[in-house]
Amino acid sequence: MASKENKEGISKFTNKVSIKSFQQKRKTTINADDLVKSVLNKSISALSRAITLIESNNPAHQEKANKIIKNCLPHANKSIRIGITGVPGVGKSTFIETLGNHLILQGKKVAVLAVDPSSTVTKGSILGDKTRMENLAKNPKAFIRPSASGNTLGGVAKKTRETIILCEAAGFDVIIIETVGVGQSETTVASMVDFFLLLKLAGAGDELQGIKRGIIEMADTIAINKADGNNIKQAKLAKVEFNRALHYLPRKASQWQPQVLTCSALQNEGIVEIWEAILNYFEITKANQYFSHKRQEQDKYWLMQTIENQLKANFFNSPKIQTALKEQLTLMAQNRTTAFAAANYILNLD
Amino acid sequence: MASKENKEGISKFTNKVSIKSFQQKRKTTINADDLVKSVLNKSISALSRAITLIESNNPAHQEKANKIIKNCLPHANKSIRIGITGVPGVGKSTFIETLGNHLILQGKKVAVLAVDPSSTVTKGSILGDKTRMENLAKNPKAFIRPSASGNTLGGVAKKTRETIILCEAAGFDVIIIETVGVGQSETTVASMVDFFLLLKLAGAGDELQGIKRGIIEMADTIAINKADGNNIKQAKLAKVEFNRALHYLPRKASQWQPQVLTCSALQNEGIVEIWEAILNYFEITKANQYFSHKRQEQDKYWLMQTIENQLKANFFNSPKIQTALKEQLTLMAQNRTTAFAAANYILNLD
Repeated sequence: MASKENKEGISKFTNKVSIKSFQQKRKTTINADDLVKSVLNKSISALSRAITLIESNNPAHQEKANKIIKNCLPHANKSIRIGITGVPGVGKSTFIETLGNHLILQGKKVAVLAVDPSSTVTKGSILGDKTRMENLAKNPKAFIRPSASGNTLGGVAKKTRETIILCEAAGFDVIIIETVGVGQSETTVASMVDFFLLLKLAGAGDELQGIKRGIIEMADTIAINKADGNNIKQAKLAKVEFNRALHYLPRKASQWQPQVLTCSALQNEGIVEIWEAILNYFEITKANQYFSHKRQEQDKYWLMQTIENQLKANFFNSPKIQTALKEQLTLMAQNRTTAFAAANYILNLD
Repeated sequence: MASKENKEGISKFTNKVSIKSFQQKRKTTINADDLVKSVLNKSISALSRAITLIESNNPAHQEKANKIIKNCLPHANKSIRIGITGVPGVGKSTFIETLGNHLILQGKKVAVLAVDPSSTVTKGSILGDKTRMENLAKNPKAFIRPSASGNTLGGVAKKTRETIILCEAAGFDVIIIETVGVGQSETTVASMVDFFLLLKLAGAGDELQGIKRGIIEMADTIAINKADGNNIKQAKLAKVEFNRALHYLPRKASQWQPQVLTCSALQNEGIVEIWEAILNYFEITKANQYFSHKRQEQDKYWLMQTIENQLKANFFNSPKIQTALKEQLTLMAQNRTTAFAAANYILNLD
């Protein structure tokens, strides 16, 4: 039964036509309370349905979604949340599949979500490809969800954060949030997970030059993937370089010393060691209270971010303000007004 | 005459009683148009008086100040603006004095301003000490201004930015903005200068661990000061370390490769080389248009910052919002609401 439900949950989102017919069929019959009960009873199809409501822009759906989240909240927050990032080609899918299967063998339930900044442009999705994580996707203890779409990264983040809550209420112990190393998406993911893993390749030429230190700084562990065959020597060199890079960073508030490890997800080598490092991180940060502190800080961050973004959007959406902004920018470029005088002028229009 | 005016300009701001009596005496007699004329005629006392108006919180003074800035603007933007930062003890005063005297010998006019984040707390000022830069202060081609005070760094920044405009209108070619390495002040200074110089000490133990990369990243040049006597060897080692650290940073948009240089401001060694590096920077960035591009971006940044800060202040100043924020934070900590539901609730109160 669980297996059938799971298959339904997966296939539904890989086929747009079936999503639509599914949504239409259920639209009038979904009851928020029943859905919450089913989610808490670990029904994968109920979980999928609830997430679809979260992702809907229909106000009636949103109202229902808010009720569901509110009732799932007391049952959430019990998982560990792991962010995984890396450039395309680093082997994220294979890594998550290998790690996910390892965790399931240990009795865990694993949900994989994605934050995909490119999906708003290309309408594609880093998890939309059916052939990815095929093994893991078939497992009833796994739940794989394509990335939420939205017009803004903030909107995608909101949906992802609420999806985490539902997955936790449905009994998933490990939530993996995947993102590609593009733009601000890593920062967004880092601000919603407990542990952040950066996947790298050896010999990609970016160990020294062009390292995006912002990302290195966020990483709780760096895993150099594809450390197999002829790559092993290069992977070891890269490990030295990244360890050196880490020394340039200040000590983390978590008191955790970030690790550099090598692995081959394809050959299932080094994955156990990475998982042990992750467990070690949680042991340390739960003992020193950093774990709960970080979650509270993340909540505050998202609260303030949401308010600030909405205040800005409300202000700058006005055509009058937009026109004035353009005018003032021109005057500034002509050295006829200062930034502060221009700001005052614009603010007084509101 | 210039010398007498200059002395007046300096002493006025080192004695609070005399400032007050001076302001009272002039309050009714200052005419904005006359003041602009005198500033453009390079009168130091007029410049000081205009800056005092900028720093005043009196609405009548502010109105006059805005008029003065507006009329000085067409004559501004002709200097080079250099930010200098470093922790207390690194020798900023001596460095600025030595560099300033070198520039004056080359026929330049040098203004030294300060952004001092601590002044709002301690009511002190990094340029308030009369004994600092005594030599430079006596020179009629130099203008030294204690840091603007204010309740927020944004407020201090506004005053400093407007003071830069006045100094430029008064014919100063080189504007040096000094700050101590505390909190956000370096970021603030970096966003209002063309070139950012970081002063460091050798053997301070922070070359490897605890380097504030955010600052290193902003630096266009790192100067290791006090490279004299027994320190020379350590300074050379520090140079190697900092050069290595710089390799971990991405290439700058300016196309300028940041330098690491050693100097002894006290013994006037290496200062000429640092100035040559600075001139080289301006040659490159004026040729590739980065110079004017950066100034325009800074203007936009301050425009948007000012608007956003004011929008937030207007919203959060409401007691109703403050109470709701506290309540919602408590509910969030109890897992009874999400950041997004809480934000929505608070936004709808407005």
